[in-house]
Amino acid sequence: MTPEGLARASADAMWQGDLASQSLGMAIDDIGPGRATLSMTVRDEMTNGHKTCHGGFIFTLADSAFAFACNSYNQRTVAQMAAITFLAPAFAGDRLTATAHEVARAGRSGIYDIRVTNQDGQQIAEFRGHSRTVKGTHLPVDPGNTPSE
Amino acid sequence: MTPEGLARASADAMWQGDLASQSLGMAIDDIGPGRATLSMTVRDEMTNGHKTCHGGFIFTLADSAFAFACNSYNQRTVAQMAAITFLAPAFAGDRLTATAHEVARAGRSGIYDIRVTNQDGQQIAEFRGHSRTVKGTHLPVDPGNTPSE
Amino acid sequence: MTPEGLARASADAMWQGDLASQSLGMAIDDIGPGRATLSMTVRDEMTNGHKTCHGGFIFTLADSAFAFACNSYNQRTVAQMAAITFLAPAFAGDRLTATAHEVARAGRSGIYDIRVTNQDGQQIAEFRGHSRTVKGTHLPVDPGNTPSE
Amino acid sequence: MTPEGLARASADAMWQGDLASQSLGMAIDDIGPGRATLSMTVRDEMTNGHKTCHGGFIFTLADSAFAFACNSYNQRTVAQMAAITFLAPAFAGDRLTATAHEVARAGRSGIYDIRVTNQDGQQIAEFRGHSRTVKGTHLPVDPGNTPSE
Repeated sequence: MTPEGLARASADAMWQGDLASQSLGMAIDDIGPGRATLSMTVRDEMTNGHKTCHGGFIFTLADSAFAFACNSYNQRTVAQMAAITFLAPAFAGDRLTATAHEVARAGRSGIYDIRVTNQDGQQIAEFRGHSRTVKGTHLPVDPGNTPSE
Repeated sequence: MTPEGLARASADAMWQGDLASQSLGMAIDDIGPGRATLSMTVRDEMTNGHKTCHGGFIFTLADSAFAFACNSYNQRTVAQMAAITFLAPAFAGDRLTATAHEVARAGRSGIYDIRVTNQDGQQIAEFRGHSRTVKGTHLPVDPGNTPSE
Repeated sequence: MTPEGLARASADAMWQGDLASQSLGMAIDDIGPGRATLSMTVRDEMTNGHKTCHGGFIFTLADSAFAFACNSYNQRTVAQMAAITFLAPAFAGDRLTATAHEVARAGRSGIYDIRVTNQDGQQIAEFRGHSRTVKGTHLPVDPGNTPSE
Repeated sequence: MTPEGLARASADAMWQGDLASQSLGMAIDDIGPGRATLSMTVRDEMTNGHKTCHGGFIFTLADSAFAFACNSYNQRTVAQMAAITFLAPAFAGDRLTATAHEVARAGRSGIYDIRVTNQDGQQIAEFRGHSRTVKGTHLPVDPGNTPSE
């Protein structure tokens, strides 16, 4: 299987169980080795007391893009730490897009940057996630294909 | 009004419009000047492809506790940056509690730490948020009571 | 050996090789299991183009306090990630104190918070460090006493 | 003056007072609007008890690159928050290079990413800095050329 095909198959397997991303109406727009793009429309029930999208939902979209990007090698990989900077508010009805790319990957550790933009291309948030590979794969693999530290 | 009363009244005003925190089933367990405790039960639709609570919902609970803590002085205050470390997974049915306290406040800037624990008191995540006070109040105030840098 | 004694002995062993902390004039004011307090006077050659202490030296003091705190169990432990917020400037001649305490420790991972204050007790910076235990000890140990994940 | 010329002149003005960067033996290899590259050789007295470069000095190099990049518009700009991830150790004698580029800039706030590599091009650290523009300029300016929020 090619790296692009493996990323696609890993994402398909993960997506089946990802009730969170599904129930928030996310879509996977692009997936590949070390990268993922997801989008989501801000719903009324995602807004807070400031009448803007609750930062938690912006984070959740970015975190899903991070998860699909760092799991694209068919190795179960979890978020260890993440930081987000909010640059501009998002509003109900906005279509947000989170684009994840890999900054570093060494041993079991990885760093991924995710940019969140709205339908006008405006920067809404910048997210940096730290991942760690754990035991297990998304697809069946031959025994030699396991991560080492 | 006492600082405790002002914090309670500011939280009540914010809560009315906070559809996000309401729709996720959060409850405000404690509120005071510079502090807030919120709790939430993890639902099936909050779980991800690893069969654990999506980190985004853990972040969202912590972010709401952060928001209520930093808005407890009746000055509109927004999240600028936040970082979260995931320490242990949470599962559907878990009752998570996020406890926010103030680490620093100077001029318009503040730092708040939020600890997320489950029903057994186990640490699930540690969150640090940076806030910035903007124009406006949650309750009517006399003109002299505005933040200055 | 008591936990307090082990922390002191580990610090003594580390300090011998820590040319960086020595050459910057740091002193260890307190050491114990999961905690450390170090202090340092800001020198002229630590100031930058804004005529204030270069943030790098404030970070370095906090990072040393972090290192002594997370190495206090006689297990070699390294910094993986750290974040610092600068709250007020420091000036040449200021005596800065960095106080580290443990926020979480599970398996090989730890979180430590370090507060930096000046001689007047004013908050200068807040630092949060993430550590990871690696192979090796500072003092000879019996074979059973090694960290496990 | 061109943006490139303004960045160069701002850097020259800042460098005169930056005793910290000078005394650590840093050199400015490149400077431009929103970008800066600085390098430094690791000295024996920059090493710690693990016989590797103390993380504080890696941070300081990255922080200087950050400072020159965010001050390249001739507006006094200070570091508000910074996070660093350590990817590989550096050793005495290594020549480290920190390359800063702008991720976002809106109003008084900016985000800059700095990559630190060694003489073999190996990634040593990734740094993300948050800046805030304050009053004042590095060079004399006409009164209309001031930042607004």
